[in-house]
Amino acid sequence: MSSSSPQVRIEKDLMGEKKIPADAYYGIQTIRAQENFPITGFPPHEELIKAFGYVKKAAAKANAKVGVLNKGIAEAIIQAADEVIAGEFNEEFIVDSIQGGAGTSFNMNANEVIANRAIEILGGKKGEYLKVSPTTHVNMAQSTNDTFPTAINIACLNLSQGLIKALNDLVETMKKKEDEFDHVIKMGRTHLQDAVPIRLGQEFGSYGRLLARDLKRVKQSVDQLYEVNMGATAVGTGLNAMPAYIDQVTKNLAEITGLPFHRADNLVDATQNTDAYTQLSGAMKILAINLSKISNDLRLMSSGPRTGFNEINLPPRQAGSSIMPGKVNPVMCEVVNQISFQVIGNDHTISLASEAGQLELNVMEPVLVFNLLQSFTILRNGINVFKEFAVEGIEANIYHCKQLVENSVGIITAINPHVGYETAARIAKEAISSGRPVREICIERGILSEEELDQILDPLEMTNPGIAAKELIFGEE
Amino acid sequence: MSSSSPQVRIEKDLMGEKKIPADAYYGIQTIRAQENFPITGFPPHEELIKAFGYVKKAAAKANAKVGVLNKGIAEAIIQAADEVIAGEFNEEFIVDSIQGGAGTSFNMNANEVIANRAIEILGGKKGEYLKVSPTTHVNMAQSTNDTFPTAINIACLNLSQGLIKALNDLVETMKKKEDEFDHVIKMGRTHLQDAVPIRLGQEFGSYGRLLARDLKRVKQSVDQLYEVNMGATAVGTGLNAMPAYIDQVTKNLAEITGLPFHRADNLVDATQNTDAYTQLSGAMKILAINLSKISNDLRLMSSGPRTGFNEINLPPRQAGSSIMPGKVNPVMCEVVNQISFQVIGNDHTISLASEAGQLELNVMEPVLVFNLLQSFTILRNGINVFKEFAVEGIEANIYHCKQLVENSVGIITAINPHVGYETAARIAKEAISSGRPVREICIERGILSEEELDQILDPLEMTNPGIAAKELIFGEE
Amino acid sequence: MSSSSPQVRIEKDLMGEKKIPADAYYGIQTIRAQENFPITGFPPHEELIKAFGYVKKAAAKANAKVGVLNKGIAEAIIQAADEVIAGEFNEEFIVDSIQGGAGTSFNMNANEVIANRAIEILGGKKGEYLKVSPTTHVNMAQSTNDTFPTAINIACLNLSQGLIKALNDLVETMKKKEDEFDHVIKMGRTHLQDAVPIRLGQEFGSYGRLLARDLKRVKQSVDQLYEVNMGATAVGTGLNAMPAYIDQVTKNLAEITGLPFHRADNLVDATQNTDAYTQLSGAMKILAINLSKISNDLRLMSSGPRTGFNEINLPPRQAGSSIMPGKVNPVMCEVVNQISFQVIGNDHTISLASEAGQLELNVMEPVLVFNLLQSFTILRNGINVFKEFAVEGIEANIYHCKQLVENSVGIITAINPHVGYETAARIAKEAISSGRPVREICIERGILSEEELDQILDPLEMTNPGIAAKELIFGEE
Amino acid sequence: MSSSSPQVRIEKDLMGEKKIPADAYYGIQTIRAQENFPITGFPPHEELIKAFGYVKKAAAKANAKVGVLNKGIAEAIIQAADEVIAGEFNEEFIVDSIQGGAGTSFNMNANEVIANRAIEILGGKKGEYLKVSPTTHVNMAQSTNDTFPTAINIACLNLSQGLIKALNDLVETMKKKEDEFDHVIKMGRTHLQDAVPIRLGQEFGSYGRLLARDLKRVKQSVDQLYEVNMGATAVGTGLNAMPAYIDQVTKNLAEITGLPFHRADNLVDATQNTDAYTQLSGAMKILAINLSKISNDLRLMSSGPRTGFNEINLPPRQAGSSIMPGKVNPVMCEVVNQISFQVIGNDHTISLASEAGQLELNVMEPVLVFNLLQSFTILRNGINVFKEFAVEGIEANIYHCKQLVENSVGIITAINPHVGYETAARIAKEAISSGRPVREICIERGILSEEELDQILDPLEMTNPGIAAKELIFGEE
Repeated sequence: MSSSSPQVRIEKDLMGEKKIPADAYYGIQTIRAQENFPITGFPPHEELIKAFGYVKKAAAKANAKVGVLNKGIAEAIIQAADEVIAGEFNEEFIVDSIQGGAGTSFNMNANEVIANRAIEILGGKKGEYLKVSPTTHVNMAQSTNDTFPTAINIACLNLSQGLIKALNDLVETMKKKEDEFDHVIKMGRTHLQDAVPIRLGQEFGSYGRLLARDLKRVKQSVDQLYEVNMGATAVGTGLNAMPAYIDQVTKNLAEITGLPFHRADNLVDATQNTDAYTQLSGAMKILAINLSKISNDLRLMSSGPRTGFNEINLPPRQAGSSIMPGKVNPVMCEVVNQISFQVIGNDHTISLASEAGQLELNVMEPVLVFNLLQSFTILRNGINVFKEFAVEGIEANIYHCKQLVENSVGIITAINPHVGYETAARIAKEAISSGRPVREICIERGILSEEELDQILDPLEMTNPGIAAKELIFGEE
Repeated sequence: MSSSSPQVRIEKDLMGEKKIPADAYYGIQTIRAQENFPITGFPPHEELIKAFGYVKKAAAKANAKVGVLNKGIAEAIIQAADEVIAGEFNEEFIVDSIQGGAGTSFNMNANEVIANRAIEILGGKKGEYLKVSPTTHVNMAQSTNDTFPTAINIACLNLSQGLIKALNDLVETMKKKEDEFDHVIKMGRTHLQDAVPIRLGQEFGSYGRLLARDLKRVKQSVDQLYEVNMGATAVGTGLNAMPAYIDQVTKNLAEITGLPFHRADNLVDATQNTDAYTQLSGAMKILAINLSKISNDLRLMSSGPRTGFNEINLPPRQAGSSIMPGKVNPVMCEVVNQISFQVIGNDHTISLASEAGQLELNVMEPVLVFNLLQSFTILRNGINVFKEFAVEGIEANIYHCKQLVENSVGIITAINPHVGYETAARIAKEAISSGRPVREICIERGILSEEELDQILDPLEMTNPGIAAKELIFGEE
Repeated sequence: MSSSSPQVRIEKDLMGEKKIPADAYYGIQTIRAQENFPITGFPPHEELIKAFGYVKKAAAKANAKVGVLNKGIAEAIIQAADEVIAGEFNEEFIVDSIQGGAGTSFNMNANEVIANRAIEILGGKKGEYLKVSPTTHVNMAQSTNDTFPTAINIACLNLSQGLIKALNDLVETMKKKEDEFDHVIKMGRTHLQDAVPIRLGQEFGSYGRLLARDLKRVKQSVDQLYEVNMGATAVGTGLNAMPAYIDQVTKNLAEITGLPFHRADNLVDATQNTDAYTQLSGAMKILAINLSKISNDLRLMSSGPRTGFNEINLPPRQAGSSIMPGKVNPVMCEVVNQISFQVIGNDHTISLASEAGQLELNVMEPVLVFNLLQSFTILRNGINVFKEFAVEGIEANIYHCKQLVENSVGIITAINPHVGYETAARIAKEAISSGRPVREICIERGILSEEELDQILDPLEMTNPGIAAKELIFGEE
Repeated sequence: MSSSSPQVRIEKDLMGEKKIPADAYYGIQTIRAQENFPITGFPPHEELIKAFGYVKKAAAKANAKVGVLNKGIAEAIIQAADEVIAGEFNEEFIVDSIQGGAGTSFNMNANEVIANRAIEILGGKKGEYLKVSPTTHVNMAQSTNDTFPTAINIACLNLSQGLIKALNDLVETMKKKEDEFDHVIKMGRTHLQDAVPIRLGQEFGSYGRLLARDLKRVKQSVDQLYEVNMGATAVGTGLNAMPAYIDQVTKNLAEITGLPFHRADNLVDATQNTDAYTQLSGAMKILAINLSKISNDLRLMSSGPRTGFNEINLPPRQAGSSIMPGKVNPVMCEVVNQISFQVIGNDHTISLASEAGQLELNVMEPVLVFNLLQSFTILRNGINVFKEFAVEGIEANIYHCKQLVENSVGIITAINPHVGYETAARIAKEAISSGRPVREICIERGILSEEELDQILDPLEMTNPGIAAKELIFGEE
């Protein structure tokens, strides 16, 4: 390829010529993709770029080892790939995150950048593809259909570490809060109606256990990504890939990345199916649902301060209103709700993309991976700030919590086994309509003595199984 | 076809023979469908059966009029169709709601039932299809691909009347409540945090206006269903349908049903596209979202009674708990939330089905219509009971509402234009930390006089634009 | 309670009186729920009714054992529960599947039916609740909030057996087809465009492996349901439940059902969170996505017969058209697509319901369980007929498949490593524009000899990794 | 506020101090938001920034006119807002697209940038808020709760113009293709099975009509956005806003933007409800569903070239494969599918956000608007390239289309009315099993003469209603 002017060089393919900025490492296929897909304006996620670096390095090493790739070229490709891994060429990855072609444009962008950089390393000028060809050399024994899924797996695994760390930290924080609030008696609510006493620590203990299960689900889903389909080439039959190469390339990938990758048992299956991604997105969706529920609870418990539940205080993070002075809003919970909604919507897109696979390939993987990587990123970011700026600093309004319990009618439930459901219901009804305490009515009616009530209505005891019921036998007519 | 025993008759088609219960009006195609699709256990919606009656009647009349169908046969078919419309053969419609074949089994079930009934009317015995053939006569000039969409439209239109009536009644009820609660001052909340005063009537006025827009959206969507594709036959080209028949059949349908049906402008388009259904489902989804928001608000405002907002009381409808005596839960709101979730999920299924159309036909219409008719039904039913058992009987806790406003810090906002945002914020912060009233602090600090405060802090005035700000000019340095 | 006429008896609660049909086993709470929730018209799933029978039996045995329930009453309750388990009272469960109150109406319906039957067993008349009370006795030490989730788990586990069996059978069928079609060479397609050869057996092998992973996901999700929260009572604190009872009741449940139930580690967590259900629904959603993809593939491969791919024949199951004679449609695939859409929509509803949990309880469980049980049922049913009526009988059009491969341009890929990507691309372009075979052009241009082409273009060899590439070294400039 | 060093200035609020880069126009509230919400890394959409400029300008003009804002300050604010509208401060808008606080951080970011710029204009230094206060002056008589929804409306309206233009162009292109292909006879397919002939122009005519309805739906939805809630302030009661200001501000907005804005009839309703956005997103979702269906059709019709339908050719846009030379993929269709999945997922997120509104406000608006604006953008971009790079250049393979029709069995349908369904079905069955043409079998069996067949089997006539059936009467026994 010759360069036509100092500013541009000309590249050609079967469809014709294109001008490329002279200093660009990408080439004609990248330019075509840029023209075709001016969609979101978002370039590939940095972790995906890095992942392609790993893939190309592993392949070049394997091709050299099995003797089909000239060692000098291989070394140049490996060095170029290392520079891609180091993030030195991020701005050369210009194809849009949402693109047709099943990721071919991501792969060709990587092939072209690495080829041109390798050409330079070998003393050539960008565009001299006879020295290092993006397809024949950099893409040797590869297809988009094995390199792109493999790169997705690498990117997800690297991002997953941040999410797992963040989630684990949040679980630990919830446990600390469980201990911290173990003594805080508050009213339990079902249907948003006064139910029976519970300890604030039990609330946080419940959140911690829920999130610990989410952590397990995410980890289990992530573990499936160690299985990759390098060597599958176009449709999983390994066409044009040497058996020795197929054996080697995944070993290289494991070594280079430090992650325990292994070859998929069946490459046809691994090339066409995306269920590992839907499972992973599904695990993140359930996490999102649960985070949203927890955020909603915190917003309810901190509602007020004067006209709401006012059981806890969230740390103030910013002025809540541009018009209402002094207002502090539960902004960290609100952002978690919204991240959750985004992740749930992303899961929807991912499901649609997964269902749209046809025969030997799922061409919808670009939009799938765009959403998958976004879910990882925003969950990790959101959980970190939620933990640091909201959960850690929560304080209990201990006295107000206690007052609410003592004034409530729900404590009648503890009386139930002692007097029967129907009698208890009558006392409750009177308490509600008159506004008087349950205890007062019980004594007035001679239903239970003060001593009995002291024992039965101890709120702390009510929050542990079995205390109040221990000496009674029912059912004797 | 001969009958093999008193209990069964034998019917044949190109695939072979099947035994049919001797007294069954359905025939071999229905039996095949029953075998193939034992999926949900739910037969077709009654309105869909009725709608097929209308379609078959309109077609038989048109075919007779244009002279391609023998008058005697036509009359028998018409009588049989009338009986189907009257619901007399509902139990003969046995094919499952979810089925392959794009509704062919619904259509053939209708064709067979009407043919056998027409045969009887003409003095024959069930199965003597030379007298009246399910295909040649009952289905004359028709295809599943025009009769089924047309039947869906009829069923939706009939069901829509109930929904529109219910929704209209709910809007009226909200308006009544708007008036009833016009004088009830309560605290407005944003972010679940105390904001500024509002009137309870304004809440219900807002609900009424929101639902009135939903009513408009539903009506607009329903209006599209008057356009039908009768005469399209297989792919919209009208193959095998006489032009005179095509002109006539939709006129007949309009006359028989009393609904202003007209022929689709382009029958190919009308046969393959389902956007009228996705729009309709979309309108119901938005309604569902809004009903869920309103239900959530009512559950919040009625939370407590002792440990929640306790601004309103919902009418008690049933014992709320099998263990907690006297507990009354907002069950009518909760069922509305759940109906909403169902309708939103149904919309999802409908969207998937709609997207899966291919070329000349959308074969996913059975699951689409199953969900669409369910959404109509449960929204209508839910709105009716929500209105009658919840909204109509809501009572305001006027005194408690007033107390909450007076104790709140949010009223500081009204002071804001008089003292500047920064000063107001400082007062608010002190009020929150000390638990003291805003008014008290203002007087103590000499910020505003009692008289000024009386004027500024009048809660009723705060709920109408502009009162508190009327005499002030800012921005003078 | 006295009966007012031969046809009805009168029952009373705190809200007033209701007439109950004299022969009804249900009581006033059931009637109230029936009035409040005339929503879907669908009664509870039979497996849910049965599950409540197990729960009530396990509780009565435990209460008797720990000495709080009179043995005679306990025995009558146990016998009544056994009859419920046997399905003898299914028609007495009349509350709607979608209901407010977090399942209280399901629980009370069960309590009332069992109480009235137990009263009869003890020689009393229905409504004589002093003998056996629905709340005090049948519901002793229980709450809706522990019995309902436990019943959901039992129902899901029982339904899961059918799904797991069906899915396992389908996996086995796919494996048989993998073997049967191992020798059938066909064209692989990516982007619906001709790619490179593959064996039909490899397609089915891929389907089998995908579904085997689904089976694993479903099983893993189901296994979580062995953890139940009996003894939690209202909010998980076990209020009113004896510690000895809590220990016993789950053991009883395990013994009665034969399923390895164990008590949840933390009852507060287990009472308020529904993540086990969202995970289960998520596993079914992924299965649905995958089934839909497989159905789409089968519909593509069987498209035609004259104007489509025509690689396989699906067994004809019913006349495909009411107007186009001889047409046979892929109805079993189409019903699977639609079941998939339903399950995906159901998952959406379930996610919304799960996210809407608040504080100590998720009151949206009725709609959640309605959708969850439906997903189980229709997937099981659909997979069974898909396997039996579609997959098992698939035949390959071996000769046509072979022809398509031989005429294709895609085989050029195998030539790629021997001549370089650019040369191969030029040959391909000429083959496409001229309509001539790739082989012919290669020979004409002297690019490769006939012998070389025989070796390189052997389609069978192309479907296994590495053959064609074995003796070549690239990269020598 | 004093500056502590040349590089930073210090700003204070009730929560404490923050360092601000000395040259930054944003201030302390923006910095707090940046710290709190490091979520997506995406700043606000440029149209949203611009929209805030319009809002602040309209408000300043109105406040000056009614005499509550000093004219000099007002003029400085107006000039600063104009610069924001011109895009000169885009890089100063640094708060994340997903944020808690209901958009307060967007509003405060705008207030601070405009205040600091206005201060400069008035000769002051950034941070000298006594000159121009972000709250007291720039935000005068406003709240996030009226400015943010208003800004959303403006941004959507401006973006909608591009979408409407793009969609209108695509409709026109479809019409051109309808004319261009009016004479191309091809096989119609239902269930992906050979059905009856249709003209390729009819396919495109159907796409054009479908998209024209989408255009109408989008326009109708957009029209609702002319109603804005400026003057509502915090909860819609207009607290702190002068009646004269409320009258004026929307008039100003209309004048400044050239868009026919008017004040919402009921400001409480307009402040808390987001149904206009869900309707708009719903309209875009239906458009997405329809675009996906059309893309799928084009991918099917262009499948092959040798082993698929091969009825049309899409313009080649880039090399389809990094391994398979000469392969050209339908990349423009694939990107449209993926955009559709993204928009459908976005609609899901928007629905979740809309449902989560509570009482006087929907605090989830940031994630809602993030998705709404993205849907607008990617649909517009995608439709433009789809039209230009795919639809416009589609070519028909006229000869191949004709051949497929002539070889098909589906033309038997036209014979149906002449010989009866059963006879036709037998001929069809024989044609399929023997591979012989329908015509040949008819003649051989003496069923119809050559002349009759010439007339009946004319494919062009089959694509218009009624031709083949015109002279026949059936039903005579």
